[in-house]
Amino acid sequence: MRTTVGIIGAGPAGLLLARLLHNAGVDAVVLEGRDRSYVERRQRAGILEQGTTDVLRAAGAGERMDREGLRHDGIELRFAGRRHRVDFPALTGGRSVTVYAQTEVCKDLIALQLKEGGPLLFEAEALAVEGADTDRPRIRFRHEGAEEVLECDYVVGCDGFRGVSRQAVPASLSRVFERTYPFGWLGILADVPPSHDELVYARHDRGFALLSMRSTSVSRLYLQVPAGTDAGSWSDEEIWDELELRLETADDWVLRRGPITQKSVTPMRSFVHEPMRYGRLFLAGDAAHIVPPTGAKGLNLAVGDVVTLARALTHERRTGSADLLDAYSATCLRRVWQAERFSYDMTALLHRAPGATPFEDRLQLARLERLTASRAAETDLAEAYTGFPFG
Amino acid sequence: MRTTVGIIGAGPAGLLLARLLHNAGVDAVVLEGRDRSYVERRQRAGILEQGTTDVLRAAGAGERMDREGLRHDGIELRFAGRRHRVDFPALTGGRSVTVYAQTEVCKDLIALQLKEGGPLLFEAEALAVEGADTDRPRIRFRHEGAEEVLECDYVVGCDGFRGVSRQAVPASLSRVFERTYPFGWLGILADVPPSHDELVYARHDRGFALLSMRSTSVSRLYLQVPAGTDAGSWSDEEIWDELELRLETADDWVLRRGPITQKSVTPMRSFVHEPMRYGRLFLAGDAAHIVPPTGAKGLNLAVGDVVTLARALTHERRTGSADLLDAYSATCLRRVWQAERFSYDMTALLHRAPGATPFEDRLQLARLERLTASRAAETDLAEAYTGFPFG
Repeated sequence: MRTTVGIIGAGPAGLLLARLLHNAGVDAVVLEGRDRSYVERRQRAGILEQGTTDVLRAAGAGERMDREGLRHDGIELRFAGRRHRVDFPALTGGRSVTVYAQTEVCKDLIALQLKEGGPLLFEAEALAVEGADTDRPRIRFRHEGAEEVLECDYVVGCDGFRGVSRQAVPASLSRVFERTYPFGWLGILADVPPSHDELVYARHDRGFALLSMRSTSVSRLYLQVPAGTDAGSWSDEEIWDELELRLETADDWVLRRGPITQKSVTPMRSFVHEPMRYGRLFLAGDAAHIVPPTGAKGLNLAVGDVVTLARALTHERRTGSADLLDAYSATCLRRVWQAERFSYDMTALLHRAPGATPFEDRLQLARLERLTASRAAETDLAEAYTGFPFG
Repeated sequence: MRTTVGIIGAGPAGLLLARLLHNAGVDAVVLEGRDRSYVERRQRAGILEQGTTDVLRAAGAGERMDREGLRHDGIELRFAGRRHRVDFPALTGGRSVTVYAQTEVCKDLIALQLKEGGPLLFEAEALAVEGADTDRPRIRFRHEGAEEVLECDYVVGCDGFRGVSRQAVPASLSRVFERTYPFGWLGILADVPPSHDELVYARHDRGFALLSMRSTSVSRLYLQVPAGTDAGSWSDEEIWDELELRLETADDWVLRRGPITQKSVTPMRSFVHEPMRYGRLFLAGDAAHIVPPTGAKGLNLAVGDVVTLARALTHERRTGSADLLDAYSATCLRRVWQAERFSYDMTALLHRAPGATPFEDRLQLARLERLTASRAAETDLAEAYTGFPFG
């Protein structure tokens, strides 16, 4: 089997890259280890930056998103009994974000790919990337019980943090930057309309809480829990009680409860692999970098990567010039590090760190105060939340 | 001896408070443990916020400052071989700072006080504040070999971090917030015109460096050194060599060397004592809070405290209402915590922390990048640097 661009992984990065290349007339094959139903159900992010929705729309994948996605013009911060809304359009010259679940983005892109795109193979598990430093890189993969090889001009690893692509970069050329956090998020999906129109980020003495949503009928809520917590150790009632406390419900605002349909704990990690390119292998999305979920940046970073990469690959096909491909890693990393910084800061701003000193607690409150008192500080947050420009 | 307001300490806080009270017709006595010559020579801060210069001018203590002080409209940041100027007036609607040494502020205020103010006693060492929780607080002090008592309506502790005033607050009512840093500043005064018009803040792999000045003929320069460093362990030549490296001199910019007239190491500490009031005792300036010097906030915070306090004391004298005095601690602490936050952030932005991970190093560079890329982020810094509004 042979193609121009071999893409490992049918998450949003791989699927969108395939779509962008298809639209540009560049051949690509997508290999995905899981089956379609798994991919279409796995719960991940749900906040799309304006740049991300623009790209999906321009790629012809925005129709259902525009119909069902919820435009959000702000978020609410809660701390020390106070509420403060950050008004995105007012602060950023009109930008906003859209609530539309990653699973829905994937469903839309899969449907398009199967209808009019190149090959998308499910249950095709990538085993290794070989010859990345040659002109003929290859993906070895297992499909329907047999081992096969996909020969490519370029290989793109969109196979997430635990994928095989990154392993193909020699350790001597890799630099890894990493931080693990002593807490995670206990997240639930609940069949109940969201209790607030916009996301509510709460810093509470008992820990962080986030009220979010997937749609007008499905709530998504999170609680900061110690790293390694077993989701099963929390009963549904305990979760709702704790959410009520941390979100500081009041007479004028109550938390609607409903059946919890999913419950899981997400670990929190910051991770960057440099460079994002090795020879003819390119890493995109979680394969190259992870952010803690607090700033909702993970999916959007992946989109930025593949937009930059699609442009560079198309440019190479059309002009023979590898200039943009050569710049890929540096271009993406600038944006990646800004997102890492922002995600780290949002996490530090809102979570209770075990062992934090009283001085650090007061600093945290002073940072939140600052956001309410300075339009500049608030704008800095709003710009980052609604998205850094694509490289 | 008896007065309305007994002030312990003739640093800028105590001296300015005495001046403001004098101008308002409120009696005050200042007790200073050191002699005049010591007070007029001790090297401290040198950057006055716009609000501070406004207050000094309004108090009639701005004449020489206006003649000799240097108005600065920005600072320069250097990192990773890059230079970036932060333009204060452009970002803050016209605000700037003034370079005028704390020693000069003290000289001006001492001269005024001796000429037309109330009693200012040098070599009058405060031993204790007594009866702070009664209507008749007293300062016991030693003067010319004898122990004396100053009876007051109010006592104000402007006696710095190591003064006795804070000791009069019962431990059960005190909350202390503190952080010490694993580094300090090796500072020099040199008889050479400054090598740059404005302050240069340099983040370098070898550590932080700061080019500053006291006047058009005296340079003030600093190097980050490990905590506990003996200033004598650095030769003058080693200091100039290291400054050259960290400030990244280049063909178009050289560091002028000159005779070093003073050399010392300043420890770095963040410290806040809450509350800033106990009964009829009020703490102001370093007696209540310390910031690391990176943001040049220490002197300006002290000025903010005594402006708030002078207004409150005058209000009480004129109307009999203690409302403003009752609000003193909370009013000041809002500003204090913003300055603590900013000073901590500026320190973290520019210093090399021993044991910092590669991830943290990259975050630091990403923060500096952000300042160069976002007007909002840069404005946030410029607002804080030129000064938070007085409470």
